[in-house]
Formats: sequence, C-alpha cells, structure tokens
Amino acid sequence: MDSPATLLERRRGGRIEFGDKDFAVLLAPDSPDSVVAATLTTLAMSQHSDTEAFALTRAYVDSGQQVHWPDPHAVVDKHSTGCVGDDVSIVLAPLLGALGIPMGKVTGAALRHCGGTLDKLGCIPGLGLALSVAEFTDCVEQVGFCVAGQSSQLVPADGRTYALRERTGTVDVATLIAASIMSKKLACGAHTIALEVKYGSGAVLADAHAADELARLMRAIGEAAGRRMLISTCDASLPLAPAAGPLLELREAVAVMRGGGAAILREHVTDLAEQIVCALHPADPVRARTRIDDALDSGRAFEAFCRYVAHLGGDLRWLCDGGLANAAAPSITVYHAPVSARFDGIDAGPVGAIGQALAAIDPRCGVEILAEPGQHCAVGTPVLQVHAPDAHTGADQLSALASACRFHDE
Amino acid sequence: MDSPATLLERRRGGRIEFGDKDFAVLLAPDSPDSVVAATLTTLAMSQHSDTEAFALTRAYVDSGQQVHWPDPHAVVDKHSTGCVGDDVSIVLAPLLGALGIPMGKVTGAALRHCGGTLDKLGCIPGLGLALSVAEFTDCVEQVGFCVAGQSSQLVPADGRTYALRERTGTVDVATLIAASIMSKKLACGAHTIALEVKYGSGAVLADAHAADELARLMRAIGEAAGRRMLISTCDASLPLAPAAGPLLELREAVAVMRGGGAAILREHVTDLAEQIVCALHPADPVRARTRIDDALDSGRAFEAFCRYVAHLGGDLRWLCDGGLANAAAPSITVYHAPVSARFDGIDAGPVGAIGQALAAIDPRCGVEILAEPGQHCAVGTPVLQVHAPDAHTGADQLSALASACRFHDE
Repeated sequence: MDSPATLLERRRGGRIEFGDKDFAVLLAPDSPDSVVAATLTTLAMSQHSDTEAFALTRAYVDSGQQVHWPDPHAVVDKHSTGCVGDDVSIVLAPLLGALGIPMGKVTGAALRHCGGTLDKLGCIPGLGLALSVAEFTDCVEQVGFCVAGQSSQLVPADGRTYALRERTGTVDVATLIAASIMSKKLACGAHTIALEVKYGSGAVLADAHAADELARLMRAIGEAAGRRMLISTCDASLPLAPAAGPLLELREAVAVMRGGGAAILREHVTDLAEQIVCALHPADPVRARTRIDDALDSGRAFEAFCRYVAHLGGDLRWLCDGGLANAAAPSITVYHAPVSARFDGIDAGPVGAIGQALAAIDPRCGVEILAEPGQHCAVGTPVLQVHAPDAHTGADQLSALASACRFHDE
Repeated sequence: MDSPATLLERRRGGRIEFGDKDFAVLLAPDSPDSVVAATLTTLAMSQHSDTEAFALTRAYVDSGQQVHWPDPHAVVDKHSTGCVGDDVSIVLAPLLGALGIPMGKVTGAALRHCGGTLDKLGCIPGLGLALSVAEFTDCVEQVGFCVAGQSSQLVPADGRTYALRERTGTVDVATLIAASIMSKKLACGAHTIALEVKYGSGAVLADAHAADELARLMRAIGEAAGRRMLISTCDASLPLAPAAGPLLELREAVAVMRGGGAAILREHVTDLAEQIVCALHPADPVRARTRIDDALDSGRAFEAFCRYVAHLGGDLRWLCDGGLANAAAPSITVYHAPVSARFDGIDAGPVGAIGQALAAIDPRCGVEILAEPGQHCAVGTPVLQVHAPDAHTGADQLSALASACRFHDE
C-alpha cells in the first residue's frame, strides 16, 4: 500500500488516478489535516475523470452510516446549490408528503449570501432538527416526509473536508462540490434525486457554464451509483421568493403551502413537484398538475407540514395562531418608487447579502420585496421594505438596496 | 489583506504570484498545517518565477534569527545536496580554517541513502553540535571555522515546512528544495556560498537535468540576495569516498585531512578548496593549490580540526590516540574478487542504501570499499568489506553488494 505522500506525488506526476482505496487512506479519520489539505489542493489543480469524482464521493459515503429505506425506489431526495429566496424545500417536502411521495432530506445552514433551510425552519420555536439516522427515518415513516439537519453519523468525512476546503480556498472546485452534495444524497438512500443547480448573482455559482458542468458531473456520479437523477439548472439573478431573511422566508413558504404566497415561488415549486410526480408515476402526467395545485389550495400540504412540526416538537400554536404572522423586527423601513415606472425586479446579489447580514443580528430581520416584477409603480408605491434591528441600520441598508432596483420608464 | 484561502485560490487561478507578504501570512507560526500543506502543494503543481522562489526563501529566512558576521565578505559557507561518501564538509572546513578562510556552516542529518555530516561528526564522543547562534559565531571566531547542527533559532519555518513536505509528497519539488537550502545559507550570513549539486544513483537527485535546474534556481536566489555563488553540478553514481557509514566516513575524512586517505575524496576537496581560495584571493591562483596541498600534508588542517573538536567538548584522545582508528563493528565480512579483472568501481546506490541501513543499527557499521577504481584485481583480492552488527547480517548485505561491483575483463 502506498503512503499518502507517495500517492500524492504519483497523482501530481500524472501517474495514477485516485481510486476508492486511495481516498480511504488520504481521508481516513487519523489522516493529518496536512494530507487532507494536500489532497484537496491536488484535486483542485488537476484534471480528473468522472470515475475519480465517483471514487471520492464513495469514500465520503463510506466514512459514515447510510440510510436504508424499506423501498428506496419510493423515496425522493432533493437538493439545491442555493440562491436568494430559495424556500423550495420547505414547501416541496410537505407538498409531496400530501401526495403520498415520501421525501427524506438532510439540509444545511446558510452558504454565503444564500439563506439556509435549516435557519428558516429553525425559527419555529421548539422544532428539533438535529436528528439521528433512526429519528430521521422514523419521521419519514410517521409523518410521510422529513427535512432535518445533517446528522454527524452521515458522511463525517465531508464535514471535516468542508472545513479544510474553506481554509485552503478550494470551496469552488466543481469536483469537490459535486462529491460533497452527492455523498449526502447517496448516503440518504433515496432512489430518485432531484437537483437544482442555480447560477447568477443570487447563487453561489456565478455563471451557466459552471452550473452546467456541475450538473453534468453530479448526474454522472448519481447514475454511476444507480440513482435516478432529475437535474435542472436555472438562472437566479432575481430572488426566488420576495424575501431574504429566515423568518420572512419561512412566512413566504408557509403562505405558498397554504395556497397563497408569491407566484414566482409557487410556480417554481409546482414545476419541480410535477417533474418528480411524473418521474415516479409516468402513467398520468395530466392529472399530476391538478393534484399538486389541489394539495396546496386545499390546505393538505400545510396540514402535512403541521404534522411534521408537531412530530419534531415544534410550536404549532406559534405557527398557526398568529406567532409567525405577527413576529416582527424592531424596525421596518419602506422604500417607495421614486418615479412612475415599471418595476423589473431587484438584483438578488445585494438582497441576499443584506438579508444575511441582517439575519446574523436577528433572524426576524431581512429584506422583503413588496412590488411584483412587471408591476407598474406610481410614484410613492411601496417597492420593498427592510426589517432591521433599528431604524438607523434599516435606512443604511435601504439606500444600498434602492440602487439595485430595476425600473423601466414606460 | 487577503485571507490565506483567498491567496491560495487566486494563486491557483493564475491571478497572482506569491510575494514576501503573502508567504509571511501563509507560513506564519499560527498558520494551520492545512494552509501550509496547501501552499506547498500549490507551488508543487504550478510554474513559478525566480522572483517567487526568492520571496519564499526570504519568508523562510525572516521566520528566525540571522547570523551577522563582522565581515561577511571574509566568510564562506558550503552546501552539498548530498551523495554517498560525501565527506567534503568535514575536510573542507578545517582545511580552509588552516588557510585563514573562516567557514561557518550549519549542517543536517542523513537524507535517504546519503549519510549526514551531523551523524559522522556525532561519532566523536563529547562533541556538542547543538549550538546557539552565539555559540556558532563564537566558534568561528575562536577556532577559525565551525560546522554545527542547525539551531532552531535559524529558519524555523523551514523545519516545520520540511515535515509537511514529507507528508504531502512535495520533497522533490525544485523550488522547495532551493528555498530550503538557500534560506539556511542566507540566514547564516556568509557572502561566498559554495554549492555542490550531485546527481545519479548515489545522490538524492536522479539526473543531470534536475541538478542543472536546481543549480540555476539557487544561483538566481543567491545572486538576488547579493551573494557570490560558486556552484558546481557533479555525477555521483560512484561513492565520493570509499566508505558508507558514519564512523567509517569520519575515519576517511580524518585520513584525508592528515594528508593521506582516498585519492577521490582528496581530489574533490582540494578542487573545491582551490575554487574558493581563488574566488576570495584571485591575485595568486598558482600558489593556491600548493598552499592547499601543504595544509593537508603538513597536518595543519588536522590541527585545525582538533582545535574545533576541543572547543566543542569532543574527546581529542579518542580522535588522535587510537579510539577512532580502532573502533570496530562486531562483525567484518570481506568480499574477494571472484575473477581476475579490472575493478571499475561499485554503484553508489546500493552502497548508500546498505550503509544507511547498517548505520541505523550501529554507527560503527557500514560498507568499506578496499579496491580502487581502475585497479587490477587477481582472484581473491579483497574488494570491499561489510561492517555489520553480526556475521549473518554481514553475509546477507555482502551478496547484495557483490552484484553492484563492476569488473572489466582485461
């Protein structure tokens, strides 16, 4: 067996590709940080095949436990690379649950200017999201779906590697992103995996080219593992929901799952749900859309969400009886249209950055967009508002956001 | 100021070269191992300019103290990349000392199959080689020269980096070798630096091309720092002295400094000494060789060595009165010429490897070559002998060495 140093030297000299056994040695729990860091840097600086990416993914998976479902083909998993206003998972899981399609998903915290599902769900008082593998599968069985924080039992090598990727400046390497995401999907055991790769100012990935390459690589890894991959890439230069900030986004998600909410978020979620329903039940594509709309409009998706919240100890009264609706940041500052014009939306980049900055102070804070893209605004029409810890901060952030608004003279 | 992660990412993207300040951040004492390892791997996997190599060298130097000589232009330093039988420093330092040219050199332990000067001098009972910077300069002042172990006060970054190079498989990277060597030379303060870059089976570097590139790079670094660089590259496929093993090599070195010893070692040392003397005193090149030979043949070089040993607490009686001459390994096994033929020498590779393996058991053990290259050997002429911890080990190693001997039928 080669030593880590010899493996790294041979890999850099182009004389080997790393396989499962090599990664097992390089990423072993007792492997020093320096060896893991050199492995990441070596991968970041050289070409590699899909086979090598799959070997890295498997090594991550093999570092921890795996979820075993009674029927993996019935279970769906879903992941997004993240964007501003990405509340899709929060709505999609209970929606599919209401349609009898179990989704089991582990999720993460915020990444850069993209809010995290964990932070948004974490606004619900009492909700316990740190689940063991057994609690996770139990929730899916009892409730019909589960969205939970990542257990340390699952893919521990990814957690360690992620910290070292931040230190070594290798966060943006496609192979490392793909292996990190896909290892969690493979370890979670679902046969059908829906992935959304976002790009643009509101996303982690800057451009469509990077998104396409990551999508291609994750499909190759998933298919090598025998999974059904449903992958889409999409532009995220506008926010996906009209809010940025954990509480504001939870409120948007709940509005959609109750049949209301912003059209942009509802359309995105229902399109994705339709794709999943049709993949699992290809016989009846026409009825799929109707069933999906009905699950939202009838309140059954929200009922499923309530069962989930109750199962994990969350405060249902807060959720349903005004707690969520009335929660408010200390200060709200409104931005009004300065001219009479058509509002063409707002660049997601500053919305996300300001939303994350405010949320770090208070999860009730953030940015809320009031005007709909395409809407004609008379002078003085409320366009957006900043929920801030104080009026001074709110005013500061408002002026930064004002210049990101796009108006079109009619 | 960029973070280490940002620096590494920008460097890998080809958007910057590391400068002094970057290396100071990346290689700071509180920089995590992962960051240092990623820095080394990044350098190993990308092209870099001489300017960047010089910046790395300066960062190493700046990590510790530096030696300041009253007249740096008078002082000489010397380094070899190492080969089998490389006892040059042990003879050269007192030889130059006897000629009134102070040499101040810090030296290291064995590297792979190449013995280390520190291990050879360390055979002298009582000799204290772990000197502070003040003790080092004091020895040069009092004795006229000094060869000492590397103080932890000098170039601490190199010591730490070296351990991480071994872990990350970046030991053989030319820039890292050059910076490691040159940082110690620059920190030691001598204006004139003589470097020998060895290649071939008896050296660390495999071929002349690698040696030439390393020599070029070290010259560029040294000259950028304003030093006078005397650099030679030489083939080391035959042992440079007819011995491999600390005690055996010390004995060879002492024999040469007393005017005897093997012709190959004496010629190598006197050639190098002549080059140095002529560089420092260019007016009288003809007399240089005579003075050098006279310093050896008159015993003045050995007297200088004895002053050095006494100054550092070494046992002069052991050195002069039979201790060194009579020290013997438990078992000596002789290899005799199997045919009547001309002995064309022995491949340095196996001699070094076996010498190091035996020396690790007992510093008195090793390989001694008895026949001179070019000598006609009748059947039964003693060709070499193995000094071993026991007869069984000796016989084993002898058979491995026999096949490395080159005989030429006449």
